[in-house]
Amino acid sequence: MRLCRYGLIEQPQVGLYDEAGIIPLSLAELAYHQGTGKWLHIPHDDELISYLPPVGEHHLAMRRLWTWLEQNPGAVPGPLRLDPETTRILTPVARPNKLLLLAGNYAEHVKERGYVVEEQQNTFPYVFMKPASTTLSNHGQSVAIPSSSPDGIDWECELAVVIGRKCRNVTEAEALSHVAGYTVINDISHRKFRPNPGRKTRERDKFFDWLHGKWFDGFCPCGPCITSATTIPDPHTLGVKLTLNGEVRQNGSTAQMIFSIAQIIKFVSEMLTLEPGDIISTGTPSGVGSASNTFLKPGDVMHASIEKIGTLLTPMVSEAEEGDSSWDI
Amino acid sequence: MRLCRYGLIEQPQVGLYDEAGIIPLSLAELAYHQGTGKWLHIPHDDELISYLPPVGEHHLAMRRLWTWLEQNPGAVPGPLRLDPETTRILTPVARPNKLLLLAGNYAEHVKERGYVVEEQQNTFPYVFMKPASTTLSNHGQSVAIPSSSPDGIDWECELAVVIGRKCRNVTEAEALSHVAGYTVINDISHRKFRPNPGRKTRERDKFFDWLHGKWFDGFCPCGPCITSATTIPDPHTLGVKLTLNGEVRQNGSTAQMIFSIAQIIKFVSEMLTLEPGDIISTGTPSGVGSASNTFLKPGDVMHASIEKIGTLLTPMVSEAEEGDSSWDI
Repeated sequence: MRLCRYGLIEQPQVGLYDEAGIIPLSLAELAYHQGTGKWLHIPHDDELISYLPPVGEHHLAMRRLWTWLEQNPGAVPGPLRLDPETTRILTPVARPNKLLLLAGNYAEHVKERGYVVEEQQNTFPYVFMKPASTTLSNHGQSVAIPSSSPDGIDWECELAVVIGRKCRNVTEAEALSHVAGYTVINDISHRKFRPNPGRKTRERDKFFDWLHGKWFDGFCPCGPCITSATTIPDPHTLGVKLTLNGEVRQNGSTAQMIFSIAQIIKFVSEMLTLEPGDIISTGTPSGVGSASNTFLKPGDVMHASIEKIGTLLTPMVSEAEEGDSSWDI
Repeated sequence: MRLCRYGLIEQPQVGLYDEAGIIPLSLAELAYHQGTGKWLHIPHDDELISYLPPVGEHHLAMRRLWTWLEQNPGAVPGPLRLDPETTRILTPVARPNKLLLLAGNYAEHVKERGYVVEEQQNTFPYVFMKPASTTLSNHGQSVAIPSSSPDGIDWECELAVVIGRKCRNVTEAEALSHVAGYTVINDISHRKFRPNPGRKTRERDKFFDWLHGKWFDGFCPCGPCITSATTIPDPHTLGVKLTLNGEVRQNGSTAQMIFSIAQIIKFVSEMLTLEPGDIISTGTPSGVGSASNTFLKPGDVMHASIEKIGTLLTPMVSEAEEGDSSWDI
């Protein structure tokens, strides 16, 4: 089951997502009624979490609807479905309380960045935050390259976990039972951000340059949809691929993670309470731009794909062009 | 002008804050009407930002009310005012989009932590984030010491800036014109958090230990009120004081900051868009526990005070005692 949000920010709609055409929830319900004689009465909710496991209020009704449509593919004729290429798709979580991400969670990516890969027992998950309200950007929305420091902007295609239930101190065994679903994140990163370049070198500088380099407006494209956790019982079997202007740059698998999703959830929940809608992005495989000294420039187009979820489109623009796009928030 | 939120989380009330007694907004309005024959019609808003400069919709009406009450102190008799000692005061910002904080922004604090203080031109502001929804805790609310790692919990009394207007790429000269007001934050920090203690040492470990050590539930007490930016035209003249069990541990001044508030706002707004309600905590003066190897234990009580704002009370409890307090969220 794949769900998306689309339309105007102020008036988001819920859609059943498919590359062949998005079905608006209200239309899907009507088709179900015409086919079965029954109404499901699934109310509109701005957050998809309410339609997802493990505890979404309307999860079971939505699953019934999705399953019925799979069995009756002709119930909603193609011409009535929305074209994902031209529909304004919104971030699948409107307002996550937390946007947590992992650094260095794929061995080959750690190596390409010039670091030594340690065995899991010698390390721990490196978790950082991005400011959700200003970094999250929609599928298809242009992201601006900062004019003050345009060189060094890089991509990172990542599987992102959406938490479905409040939890704290979760064991590894029960961790996945708190997941609502999965989406795609492109953790855009400024590799050469260096405020006050004439400064002296200090121990902490490199760390803060790296941290701040993750925080620019729009640097966290997310979407196009959430695939329900029930549809992906094992999240460590998924292909992860990013193309830049049609050329494959990243081509890995979630099987390559150093810390598994269950281990990450356990680690994070020992520090803090996870809440419905929280996003944890699980790190990126090798193939980022900095490994080959290739960085993003205006006019570049990225497609970040994860198997069983979908493809997240992100065009890059100069800061001067920002706001020209009809996709802008 | 000092404003606070109090009452139940689900039904917060707005109060005019004073140590001698909080005046509920509705009562203040009634007193104004009885005294002047006019109604101000200030509506309830869950976020105090709407009552504050520079662009709060009800800012001018609230200022008129506050000024009138200052001129007519007998208009609301003492027995009708709420006792701040027994009133459940809530965090002054209900849901900030961003909770940004500064590391090492007071020279004496940098020195006591064992680092060299660099001149401003040789460095830049070190900004990090805390997860707002789970770290922010109310005035008077108990904060739990993590049972898995109870040694090393420290305090940091800080002046926190509340942004009042959306802004990006702000100059130093205009920076303070975007501030709604100021509040107090106690940036509770775990100095000895070390996940997987048997691990090998890596370059980044120390920074992530430090970052993660800021993220435990409740580790960001905030309050008790917001003082309007119009009441504090120069935020670099304020005493900053923290007592632990009645003993003074920090006693500095906001005059000692390395980067001024205007410089910090300029720096941050070059990376990202600041939004109304965003909080930027500006670092702590010397006198933290780690400098004398003194750390918090259950039963400890902190009073974090900033001149012209107020005193933020935080009792520490063990994780087992958490939830016993009637103040808990």
